[in-house]
Amino acid sequence: MAELTGNCLIAQSGGPTCVINSTLAGAVTEALNYECIEEIYGGLNGVVGILNEEFVDLAAESQQTIRGLRHTPGAALGTCRYKLKKQQDYERFFDVFRAHNIRYFFYIGAGECQETAGNVSKLAEENGYDLRVIGIPKTIDNDMVHTDHCPGYGSVIKHVSTTVREIACDNEATGQGDLVSILEVMGQSSGWIAAGASLAKGRDRPHDPPHLIYLPEVAFAPEKMIEDVQRVLRREKYCLIVVGEGLVDKDGNYVSVAPGAGDGFGHPVAGGTGEYLKRILDENLGLKARTARLGYTQRAAATHTSRTDGDEAYLAGQAAVRAAINGETGKMVTLLRGDSDQYSCETGLAPLSEVANGVKALPVDWIHEDGVSMNHQFYKYAHPLIQGEVAVPYDSGLPVFAHLKKEKVKKRLEAYSVE
Amino acid sequence: MAELTGNCLIAQSGGPTCVINSTLAGAVTEALNYECIEEIYGGLNGVVGILNEEFVDLAAESQQTIRGLRHTPGAALGTCRYKLKKQQDYERFFDVFRAHNIRYFFYIGAGECQETAGNVSKLAEENGYDLRVIGIPKTIDNDMVHTDHCPGYGSVIKHVSTTVREIACDNEATGQGDLVSILEVMGQSSGWIAAGASLAKGRDRPHDPPHLIYLPEVAFAPEKMIEDVQRVLRREKYCLIVVGEGLVDKDGNYVSVAPGAGDGFGHPVAGGTGEYLKRILDENLGLKARTARLGYTQRAAATHTSRTDGDEAYLAGQAAVRAAINGETGKMVTLLRGDSDQYSCETGLAPLSEVANGVKALPVDWIHEDGVSMNHQFYKYAHPLIQGEVAVPYDSGLPVFAHLKKEKVKKRLEAYSVE
Repeated sequence: MAELTGNCLIAQSGGPTCVINSTLAGAVTEALNYECIEEIYGGLNGVVGILNEEFVDLAAESQQTIRGLRHTPGAALGTCRYKLKKQQDYERFFDVFRAHNIRYFFYIGAGECQETAGNVSKLAEENGYDLRVIGIPKTIDNDMVHTDHCPGYGSVIKHVSTTVREIACDNEATGQGDLVSILEVMGQSSGWIAAGASLAKGRDRPHDPPHLIYLPEVAFAPEKMIEDVQRVLRREKYCLIVVGEGLVDKDGNYVSVAPGAGDGFGHPVAGGTGEYLKRILDENLGLKARTARLGYTQRAAATHTSRTDGDEAYLAGQAAVRAAINGETGKMVTLLRGDSDQYSCETGLAPLSEVANGVKALPVDWIHEDGVSMNHQFYKYAHPLIQGEVAVPYDSGLPVFAHLKKEKVKKRLEAYSVE
Repeated sequence: MAELTGNCLIAQSGGPTCVINSTLAGAVTEALNYECIEEIYGGLNGVVGILNEEFVDLAAESQQTIRGLRHTPGAALGTCRYKLKKQQDYERFFDVFRAHNIRYFFYIGAGECQETAGNVSKLAEENGYDLRVIGIPKTIDNDMVHTDHCPGYGSVIKHVSTTVREIACDNEATGQGDLVSILEVMGQSSGWIAAGASLAKGRDRPHDPPHLIYLPEVAFAPEKMIEDVQRVLRREKYCLIVVGEGLVDKDGNYVSVAPGAGDGFGHPVAGGTGEYLKRILDENLGLKARTARLGYTQRAAATHTSRTDGDEAYLAGQAAVRAAINGETGKMVTLLRGDSDQYSCETGLAPLSEVANGVKALPVDWIHEDGVSMNHQFYKYAHPLIQGEVAVPYDSGLPVFAHLKKEKVKKRLEAYSVE
């Protein structure tokens, strides 16, 4: 494989996570090791910034800042939800790449952004433009294929299960067999996050919460829930419920649609399932259930980052650069779990064409037969992902996060209109 | 002052906080210093447990457990919302005290539970029963009088302002001048907690969020909010709003009542203000604002405990015991702030009769004249209260909290029926 000399471009896409910046830090740090990588650019706001030629010089950032990214939530380069579709967009993309001699492109994102990365890779090959494209996974939803798990998932379930442990102490103090508390968590189409709350339950501690988990994978039936809650309240001082926002009924329709929502295409957006459950319980059991809805705080809770997740996200960034240096292109970094009982994780590669549109479902045989808890197979899978904590620095009582100074790279082309 | 020999009883009441157990630990630890205090009992579930003679032996708990209380949320002894009213209740109360030779009674709670403590103290004196009663304040609502601030408040505003810092990173990554995110926080009747979110804004950093804070102290006007948001979005990539659950309109009515709520007496319970604001903004500005509602997770977030708050809560527990030993009774421990610019705090005492029904309002002259932010006077007041972090021990990826083994004290009376 001939050495390819030129500049590198890194961009981020989709919903932020606690560790997407750790991946960025890993990629930048690794890129500095190779002389054939001349400049290290960051593209602002994913492909939108690339089309607009909005690059920042990542090598100009201080080492402190790059290190600080390892505990900074959000996405330091900004993200977008724009997908390259038009022929014109792709042509512009390559004009920009040529103008800046981009020879290495790393795109950190979920499935649909890996589709873009795959198309760019294919077009480069077709057009004889020497480019190495490596995708890097991220999503709290944990639904990408070909990877054992996704960077971002471990931290969100560490946050959710920590929160369950905390509110359990509160509920324990006030419940007298009459208290129901409901925590609504993210997951429009799968129960990966809600399932993760089960980690709060210690092994062989059947009384620990969460007592009931309602997942999008199990058709929701109100009368069954009422029975479930009554059963728990006969046994415990309180009933702590975790519910995914994407809960569906037996016909596959969302049981609750986020107030005032709709995605603009007539598709409902799920949400408000906590309040929905509360209404049913209050009306049928004469309770006053309490609800909390963590919303977007879930994916930003840097103070609950899993060290395992953060380290693997960093590793994935490094692995992407190494793969490209080794001549790989059109691939996404994957996380592969070792076979032994002792958890270990190394990186692999999968073709972008195969990861783009796949969706990894929560295995239904990891759901306990009661339909409201997870079995040991899930525990074995998820428990290693939340191990270890990340020390976030505090100043004056609050966490301090890194901010890129974003030294702009001079534009070389005419302006382009992104629609 | 003659030395009073006998047993001591500690109980907790009302809504838990992150540091009410720290107060319990302070009281137990201090009580161990005095030989005139023979047994150290905990009453389960506040006055309800006392009426039912449900005591546990706190001196039998391990030192590890008592130390662990300093980072354990909830209320380890359990709480109640029951108020002693009937003559019969008070008679029973003293029967129980006599049967167990209770000579020191420490009640940790907010205003209405201090009323009970005050009544007990007065009746003891009237009946010639030698008893020392000291109340210890706690409430995230920070609305108790005669004390500069309340144990529990510093931690809840550290949590809320940390959360604002975290979601700011997320919003910054995705906002393009079109993103509104709304965080609903507690506070049925005052904006103390919502105001605390302003600490997330660094000094001399006008662009930092929260950009808008809607407080129950300022009559809410939808058209003003729409203008506020438009003004922020002209200037910033996103608009982060913090709203108190107790928001009221110009007539003093809650703008939003918690779904299905009502306190059983026909009084509405506030809540859902985040969704209420969202609906107005979505409809009028064509946005899709995001909301999160931290709910009861706010008062349980031990992982965000303020060390200052935790230490002061502990100190208050110690001070209560010392005051009783020194012959004080019918008083509540208060926190007094030093006069110098360097923050300092010591404890004082105030008559229970004066603290029981007072409510300390958020000073309106601490609200910036724009009505949606706090001025430097608030900052000066609140900033010291969130300083320092508490190291919560983790095991296997999750925080570990202390649980009392609750060795029961043998009952000596016939059963009593608490209604």
